[in-house]
Amino acid sequence: MTRHDCLARDASDPLAPLRHRFALERSDEQGVIYLDGNSLGVPPAVTADRVRQVVEDEWGVGLIRSWNSAGWIRLSQRIGDKIARLVGAGPGELIVADSTSVNLFKILSAAIAIAKADSPERRHIVSERSNFPSDLYIADTLARAHGLALTLVDEDEVSGHIDDGLAILLLTHVNYRTGRMHRMAEVTRAAHAAGALMIWDLAHSAGAMPVRLDGGGAIEAAADFAVGCGYKYLNGGPGAPAFAWAHPRHTARMDREAWRQPLSGWLGHAAPFEFTADYKPGMGMTRFICGTPPILSLAALECGVETVLAAEDHGGLAAIRHKSIALTELFIELVESRCAGHGLALASPRDADERGSHVAFAHPTDGYAVMQALIARGVIGDFRAPDILRFGFTPLYTRFVDVWDAADRLHGALASGEWRESRFSVRAAVT
Amino acid sequence: MTRHDCLARDASDPLAPLRHRFALERSDEQGVIYLDGNSLGVPPAVTADRVRQVVEDEWGVGLIRSWNSAGWIRLSQRIGDKIARLVGAGPGELIVADSTSVNLFKILSAAIAIAKADSPERRHIVSERSNFPSDLYIADTLARAHGLALTLVDEDEVSGHIDDGLAILLLTHVNYRTGRMHRMAEVTRAAHAAGALMIWDLAHSAGAMPVRLDGGGAIEAAADFAVGCGYKYLNGGPGAPAFAWAHPRHTARMDREAWRQPLSGWLGHAAPFEFTADYKPGMGMTRFICGTPPILSLAALECGVETVLAAEDHGGLAAIRHKSIALTELFIELVESRCAGHGLALASPRDADERGSHVAFAHPTDGYAVMQALIARGVIGDFRAPDILRFGFTPLYTRFVDVWDAADRLHGALASGEWRESRFSVRAAVT
Repeated sequence: MTRHDCLARDASDPLAPLRHRFALERSDEQGVIYLDGNSLGVPPAVTADRVRQVVEDEWGVGLIRSWNSAGWIRLSQRIGDKIARLVGAGPGELIVADSTSVNLFKILSAAIAIAKADSPERRHIVSERSNFPSDLYIADTLARAHGLALTLVDEDEVSGHIDDGLAILLLTHVNYRTGRMHRMAEVTRAAHAAGALMIWDLAHSAGAMPVRLDGGGAIEAAADFAVGCGYKYLNGGPGAPAFAWAHPRHTARMDREAWRQPLSGWLGHAAPFEFTADYKPGMGMTRFICGTPPILSLAALECGVETVLAAEDHGGLAAIRHKSIALTELFIELVESRCAGHGLALASPRDADERGSHVAFAHPTDGYAVMQALIARGVIGDFRAPDILRFGFTPLYTRFVDVWDAADRLHGALASGEWRESRFSVRAAVT
Repeated sequence: MTRHDCLARDASDPLAPLRHRFALERSDEQGVIYLDGNSLGVPPAVTADRVRQVVEDEWGVGLIRSWNSAGWIRLSQRIGDKIARLVGAGPGELIVADSTSVNLFKILSAAIAIAKADSPERRHIVSERSNFPSDLYIADTLARAHGLALTLVDEDEVSGHIDDGLAILLLTHVNYRTGRMHRMAEVTRAAHAAGALMIWDLAHSAGAMPVRLDGGGAIEAAADFAVGCGYKYLNGGPGAPAFAWAHPRHTARMDREAWRQPLSGWLGHAAPFEFTADYKPGMGMTRFICGTPPILSLAALECGVETVLAAEDHGGLAAIRHKSIALTELFIELVESRCAGHGLALASPRDADERGSHVAFAHPTDGYAVMQALIARGVIGDFRAPDILRFGFTPLYTRFVDVWDAADRLHGALASGEWRESRFSVRAAVT
């Protein structure tokens, strides 16, 4: 494998025509290779103009009328329907609102209500100790409030905790640090076979690979609830609103029982513009909307989601996943061959079937400084304490030649020893 | 009073030089008079360019680095400090995040925790039946969850419910329908004298008048908690993030007791980038941040807040309030004199001291259709069920001549009888 081979692979990449949909000209001019789309996706090329249009025309000219005339009032649902196509969900099943953490609070509250009603003897919410901390913080709060136990286990202990004490299994599909990916259908089936509910956090998978929340038609493999993030592989912009999904069997029951989620804000009301003093939850997923959503950020999110939907004519999520595996395999191969002897150890699964779209290497002593030195050489990944260098690969815009060049520069940063310079060890607020 | 007199008042208005800070050229060209800034403020002239800069430069070029280099990670606090100057709060006391409803959920949870600890015998949360419904929905949910009673009373019954059963008094400073304004210091003193906590919703007052959450230095008149909205008189854009404030005596106690608010998301953690599995609340108001905030919408909000801060060199909030009273007095006078006999009845307090910056008239049978006919004549107010025509006056951009012309067109719409045409009675989703 040579750099020339990488260029040849780019030339025959069916997704290559989609790269122009991203505003990468200035990064390309600066020689920047961006391998952090798993943390914050690159802006779509149309986003700046679209947001300007929202500010100048919809807000500036339409003013308050745009809640109707520009469709703002249905934007949460409209974008939700688009994301639904990316995660194996149906129209009306998914809404966009708030942050992932706030959505998990709502969704987990729903799951707890169901678990307490159907199997009050089950006392455990199980998650992974290595799950994204915000999920654990929210789960801990709700477990305490409802007299349940949040049990945190290592990833290889999850299956051993799927038993008749399990109320809810809460997992992130792809681990934010290591990139380890759960077998979603298999785990969901196991949870259901044990009588538990299954919640998936799709933060690091929505837009990066095929996801079937509906179990691909197999009811036992259909998840119960899900949340996910808008600013990673969905390219929605910094802090883009997040999404929430519930299986229709649960929303149908919520409708029958007029169940209200705790963040009972006015836009989740059955008739918000009647301004009644009594709360009556909206039908289906509408109840999971709370306050007025941030329209500018929603408009940007819609542009981001469209970049992934545009792949439908180029092989879709299957092609994205195919290229993702090729990119991560190549990166692992190049780093292990070219950077051998510099202390890096693969912290992601070696088996591509168990890995998402990012790759983690551990550095025993100075991961932070090595990443800073690499960033100074124009390769942007990130560091996750205590020892992880993290590299994300977004098949819509990451090229094979980027992988080659990134590994080459990583070798340069390591071999030069420049990462030992004090300028690379000063920590910024966000790393 | 003639139209010429109104033009003269505009010519001598000390706030007139600030109107160019708003993107009103196209509305002016179209002859649109916008009297709905109490629902959605007009875009500042700089917002479109600022948001473009965030998308193209901070997000597009800075990419993930902008969390540090562009200061995104402190944006909630930076804008919070600016809003604090408008509501009588100090630096570090106010944060911007989420929606007003979500913030009320956090803040009211804090108040309930304090009330239960200090005076468990108090069982009542009191609010007004006519408060904005979302506040009541959130309060109802939390009251149920904590075994308290939400008692809703008419506005003239509030003082009668300030007694030794009162745990928390939750009021909106200016009523969203009628514009009735509470005497904030007086009500707060009464609540405190009775041993209760005082929460203010500043949705219809922040940016429209002087507000002293700190009681102007008198501890008995200092509020306990507050929330407010970014997209009304703060001109932050549709669905702009909202704000939350707690008195420093309460955050100091939360710090001592390591109290966690229920929406325990990662950015409210004491050290979010250590990614620990255990939640440890951040100090002070930081704990009230939850998930990652929507940066594009925050950037627009900051532009909006700056338009109000710009008034500091033109008499500040006192001048804004002075003009607000003059505008609303003029509108009431003109409507009552020119539209007499058409069934409109003032639904706002006649005494300016008891009125915020919007004016409501009730129409006995056809308020919706009358408002639609008026909008067709280029005057944008709104309708609030069942019978209220609502007109908001934003002193930073509403002119005296606008008031004259609006009343003139309202008279035209009523006198022509065109509001009886069926085209004006078809309801849109949002009215």
